[in-house]
Amino acid sequence: MKRQELVENIRRKRSFLCVGLDTDIKKIPQHLLDTDDPIFNFNKAIIDATAPYCVAYKPNLAFYESLGVEGWIALEKTIKYIKANYPDQFIIADAKRGDIGNTSQMYARSFFEHLNVDSITVAPYMGEDSVTPFLGYEGKWVILLALTSNKGSHDFQLIEDRDGRRLFENVILTSSKWAGPDEMMYVVGATQGKMFEDIRRVAPRSFLLVPGVGAQGGSLEEVARYGMIDDCGLLVNSSRGIIYASNGHDFAEAAANEARKLAEQMATLLA
Amino acid sequence: MKRQELVENIRRKRSFLCVGLDTDIKKIPQHLLDTDDPIFNFNKAIIDATAPYCVAYKPNLAFYESLGVEGWIALEKTIKYIKANYPDQFIIADAKRGDIGNTSQMYARSFFEHLNVDSITVAPYMGEDSVTPFLGYEGKWVILLALTSNKGSHDFQLIEDRDGRRLFENVILTSSKWAGPDEMMYVVGATQGKMFEDIRRVAPRSFLLVPGVGAQGGSLEEVARYGMIDDCGLLVNSSRGIIYASNGHDFAEAAANEARKLAEQMATLLA
Repeated sequence: MKRQELVENIRRKRSFLCVGLDTDIKKIPQHLLDTDDPIFNFNKAIIDATAPYCVAYKPNLAFYESLGVEGWIALEKTIKYIKANYPDQFIIADAKRGDIGNTSQMYARSFFEHLNVDSITVAPYMGEDSVTPFLGYEGKWVILLALTSNKGSHDFQLIEDRDGRRLFENVILTSSKWAGPDEMMYVVGATQGKMFEDIRRVAPRSFLLVPGVGAQGGSLEEVARYGMIDDCGLLVNSSRGIIYASNGHDFAEAAANEARKLAEQMATLLA
Repeated sequence: MKRQELVENIRRKRSFLCVGLDTDIKKIPQHLLDTDDPIFNFNKAIIDATAPYCVAYKPNLAFYESLGVEGWIALEKTIKYIKANYPDQFIIADAKRGDIGNTSQMYARSFFEHLNVDSITVAPYMGEDSVTPFLGYEGKWVILLALTSNKGSHDFQLIEDRDGRRLFENVILTSSKWAGPDEMMYVVGATQGKMFEDIRRVAPRSFLLVPGVGAQGGSLEEVARYGMIDDCGLLVNSSRGIIYASNGHDFAEAAANEARKLAEQMATLLA
C-alpha cells in the first residue's frame, strides 16, 4: 500500500488506529477453545468487529510462533482473511527482524512474497545491510525500531554520542539515507510523550508506528500533540486494550466498543 | 546444556565448531527436491555427516520461515532429530529476537518450551526487559548480539558515547548485570579480527558465538589468538562453507570434509 492510499484511508475513516493481534491462546475466551481453530476464529471475530474503526492490523509474530506450526497456519489464515475481506487495511507483521544481508533477504521473501503483508518491523542494531534487503518492494514498507515503548528503551536507545546525539536519533538520521518516508516508518512508543518533538526534529515527514497506548499507559493526546503532521503521519496501535476488553461471549462487541472509543478520539484529534 | 557440559564436549571432540543450518531450498542438491521433505532430508544428511566434527548446530530461522508452515515443520523435525540422535550437540536457534516483555516471554516459551533448543540469539536494542524473559530457564542460554560480522555492524555498534565506550561495549557491560557467563553468550563476528581483544576486556569469561568464518571471510586463527580463553569460550560457526561445499550427490561427504578440516585446525588451536 502506498503512502497516499494509507493517508486517504485515514481521512475517510477519520481514524489512525492499528489493532494489534497479540492473540494468546491462554487469554482468549474459553468457549472458542472447543472450535476447530481457536486463534483464527478469535482473530476473525475481532477483525470483523473492529474493521470499521481502524486502518491497520498488526499481528505480533511471537504469539503465533509460540504455537509452532499451528500458530503459523493461524497467522497465514488471518492475513489471507484480512486481504480478502478488508483490502483497505494496512497489514504490519510485527516481527522485529534484522540479520546479515542474505538472511534479511530470506525474511523479506517470507514476509513480502509469501505472507504478502504491507510492512514488517525491523531492528536496526545490525545496520544498513540488515535493513536494505527489505527495501525496493513496490508498496511495501520497513518499520524500523527507533524509540520503543518499554522501560528497557532507556538502556541503549538514549545513549548520547560525542556530539550529544542519542542512539535513536542516530538510527533515524542514518537510516533516512537508506530510504525515504515513502517506504520507511519508525516505531516510537506512546509512552515517550514529549520526546515526539525530538523525533519530529529528525523525522519530520515519516510515518510513526506508535505502540503503547492502553495497557502500556501512553497518552493518545500527547502523541497527537507532539507527533502529528499534515497528513497525520501516525499509526497508533492498541493490542490488549482492545482484543481482551472482554473475556466472555461478548468479546468481539467489547473490542469494537474499545476500538470505536479510540477512533472517536482520533477523529477529534484529526479535525 | 550447562557450561561445564559444553566445555567437556569441546575438549572430548577437540572442536568448537558450530555448523550453521542455513538451509535454502534454492541451493540444496537437485535430487533432493523429489523427496518427501527436501529441507529435512538435506539437514539429516548434513547432520549425520558432520556430527563427529562439531559440538553445535545453528539453524537460522529465516531460512525456515521463508517457507511458511512447511519450513516450520522441517525445523521442528530437524531439532527433534538432533536431540534424539546427537544429544550432546548444543542447539542454537538463530532468531535474533527481542521485543517488549510480554512478547519476549512468548518467544521464550516458543523456543525453550516448544522447540526446546539450548539457546536463542537475541538483539539488544530494546534493552533489559526484552532480554530477561529469556533468562532463568535451567540450562538454557541467551546469545546477545554484540559486534556482528556484517558491514552494517559499523553503522551503530561502533558509535562512541561521551566516555569513549562503543555501543557494543555498552551492550556487554550493561547486559552482564542481567546475567552471568553461565547463561549469556555474545555474538562477535569472525571478521572483527583484533577487536576480539576489546571484547575480552569487557567479557573476559563469556562464551562467544562467532559467525563469519568461511563465506564471510573471517580468520579462524585470529579469532582463536585474540578470543580464546582457558575453557575455550568460543563457538565458531560456519554455514555456507560447509553445507554447500558440493551441489551434487556427494554433498554430505563434501560437508563432512569441510567440517573435518575446520575441526583439525581447531584441535591444533586448542592444544
